[in-house]
Amino acid sequence: MSYFSEETSVQAVLDRLSDDVDSRFREIVTSFIKHLHGFVKDVEPTMAEWGQAIKYLTAMGQICDDKRQEWVLFSDTTGVSMLVDAINHRRPDGATENTVLGPFHVGGAPERALGDSICLDGKGAPCVVSGRVTDEDGNPIAGAKLDVWQTNDDGFYDVQQPGEQPDMNMRGLFTADEDGSYNYVTVKPLPYSIPTDGPVGRFLDGMGRHAMRPAHIHYIVSAPGYETLVTHIFVTGDPYIESDAVFGVKESLIVDFEEVDGGHRARFDVKLKKLD
Amino acid sequence: MSYFSEETSVQAVLDRLSDDVDSRFREIVTSFIKHLHGFVKDVEPTMAEWGQAIKYLTAMGQICDDKRQEWVLFSDTTGVSMLVDAINHRRPDGATENTVLGPFHVGGAPERALGDSICLDGKGAPCVVSGRVTDEDGNPIAGAKLDVWQTNDDGFYDVQQPGEQPDMNMRGLFTADEDGSYNYVTVKPLPYSIPTDGPVGRFLDGMGRHAMRPAHIHYIVSAPGYETLVTHIFVTGDPYIESDAVFGVKESLIVDFEEVDGGHRARFDVKLKKLD
Repeated sequence: MSYFSEETSVQAVLDRLSDDVDSRFREIVTSFIKHLHGFVKDVEPTMAEWGQAIKYLTAMGQICDDKRQEWVLFSDTTGVSMLVDAINHRRPDGATENTVLGPFHVGGAPERALGDSICLDGKGAPCVVSGRVTDEDGNPIAGAKLDVWQTNDDGFYDVQQPGEQPDMNMRGLFTADEDGSYNYVTVKPLPYSIPTDGPVGRFLDGMGRHAMRPAHIHYIVSAPGYETLVTHIFVTGDPYIESDAVFGVKESLIVDFEEVDGGHRARFDVKLKKLD
Repeated sequence: MSYFSEETSVQAVLDRLSDDVDSRFREIVTSFIKHLHGFVKDVEPTMAEWGQAIKYLTAMGQICDDKRQEWVLFSDTTGVSMLVDAINHRRPDGATENTVLGPFHVGGAPERALGDSICLDGKGAPCVVSGRVTDEDGNPIAGAKLDVWQTNDDGFYDVQQPGEQPDMNMRGLFTADEDGSYNYVTVKPLPYSIPTDGPVGRFLDGMGRHAMRPAHIHYIVSAPGYETLVTHIFVTGDPYIESDAVFGVKESLIVDFEEVDGGHRARFDVKLKKLD
């Protein structure tokens, strides 16, 4: 037994782990303590910096409520959400890539017929989005479910403007046809800012980073026997496409939104990964 | 410019740091992102584990108020407080070692004459503590100030039992005499538990660790021209001396509390480090 010292700090803490601790928990705590102490030893915080860190961490939790999740925002803006997503959804064989779910998904979106519009507020020019859901070999997945949601033409999700937008505006659940094809009507999405009035906003500010997300449409695509795909489609040429505040963009998810008479048209094909 | 991927995750985040970011902030963020992503890549959390972490971090801040600081407790129980303290108070030349301040210090403790008792509630057998404040070479530091505080004979600080204990019970500010000597009367301190009803308690539980601190008396010793010493004295033979929940024990701070007629006696000499 040795008492705590700068040199032995990691071992001093790990020595306290009881022998009968759950092995996964042990693995996580061991790595956490190593990295946490490694970080402290790297940067050698002053007592004042340590105090600022305590205040910051406290403020993070205190701004959270049933509508605001600052820790998810922190995870998003530090690349952790995308990293965890990448680790859990490795798709080396050409299946469509995942990206983060984001905080604006709502369960129970209304089922709509193919070709229906999800735009209930009448704002914006129509944009037709179509595509086909297949397996990795291009075989159609008939009856695949597509849950889609996005901002309206003012750049806000319905849940951000309760009372202002119709309920379930810009959301819909579609079912692919026998050929795996789907299509629906919406408006071209817009870039928007993540909330900046909390600790994460101050963090981005300190790093000299903006808080914008490039325009996107969210997708959850599912079918029995396939890994559920959680992703976005992004808009070619968006001013924030290379600097998404939450690192969600992948090259394969960027789609041309072609200008057509009176609106736009986009195509996004989906390849689902077979479950093992 | 490359989009985010598992392989490039650290660089993808660090590439966003603006060129004109404060250099100290850049240093801290760079190390933080490396260690944070390193930890995630080590443990490869499932989506469910990530969700549990978000909930845990949120709960940490939400239990904090003006009396409860769960993040300090987290820092204490993961060895971070002691590590930061050690980094900021390296004393290779024999000056008395620091340890953590703890959450129970109160400014403005009453000035008392040498030999006075800090025990205002009449509980417990008297314990005389004496010693001498010198520089590293043993020269007396006349007029050094000693701010001392501890639990009462029931094992609680006065601020934990407002209304039950007399105001400023077990606290006092003493001034060393011409010879650097000091002495005061108290009671032998008792081991006690840190709060376990919050997220830190659950964390300790998961690790199979107890939440006890070995008995101790807190000291802040200061004199013009010397580095202020923040430390405790611990009690030889305390059942928790080798397993302090906050890692505060250093061998040089363990003191014999000798049994004498009707009470105890202890001696603790202090060597202050000259300021450069």
